[in-house]
Amino acid sequence: MASQCTDLELAINTLVTQFHAASPTVGPTLTVEEFQSMVTKELPTMVKTAGEQEGLNELLKEMGVEEGQGVTFENFWVLVNSLASTQFGLLQKDKSVKCNCLLL
Amino acid sequence: MASQCTDLELAINTLVTQFHAASPTVGPTLTVEEFQSMVTKELPTMVKTAGEQEGLNELLKEMGVEEGQGVTFENFWVLVNSLASTQFGLLQKDKSVKCNCLLL
Repeated sequence: MASQCTDLELAINTLVTQFHAASPTVGPTLTVEEFQSMVTKELPTMVKTAGEQEGLNELLKEMGVEEGQGVTFENFWVLVNSLASTQFGLLQKDKSVKCNCLLL
Repeated sequence: MASQCTDLELAINTLVTQFHAASPTVGPTLTVEEFQSMVTKELPTMVKTAGEQEGLNELLKEMGVEEGQGVTFENFWVLVNSLASTQFGLLQKDKSVKCNCLLL
């Protein structure tokens, strides 16, 4: 059944479908390479550090990804939470801030 | 500096700005009434239970909101996480599912 989604519902759907879209097999986890490709393509302004191996390793560690493991949706969600919280803090400090795609 | 956001970056911004927009004072927390108004307006398909007092109370409890307290961004994020995880699970089971704005 088709339904009309609101902006907020579409936003939640986007977070989920973009994670899925990053895996050609639509598997439950992304390989580190798939994750890196997604972040550099889809979060170029919010996450500047993932292009380099060192920055990527640091990011994976913060997300709770063990060495040699894939990236789960839960891991990805840690990143989204961090970005949203930072963004929320910025908006809180400066009410004039709109979409500024903050840097990490 | 204006910047071009990707769909994923816009989605994260939408989650944050919609929470802010729900509070006329742009305060750090929403009153229960402001939260209820936001959910019924912005999550009508994903959250069907918030219109009634009993459903709203249950939802607030799941989000970790103490009685008599306001709704923080962290509380709201519990809800978003829950919706996204459910949506992720649905997509995992049925790869043909696109934006279906699942029901809670």
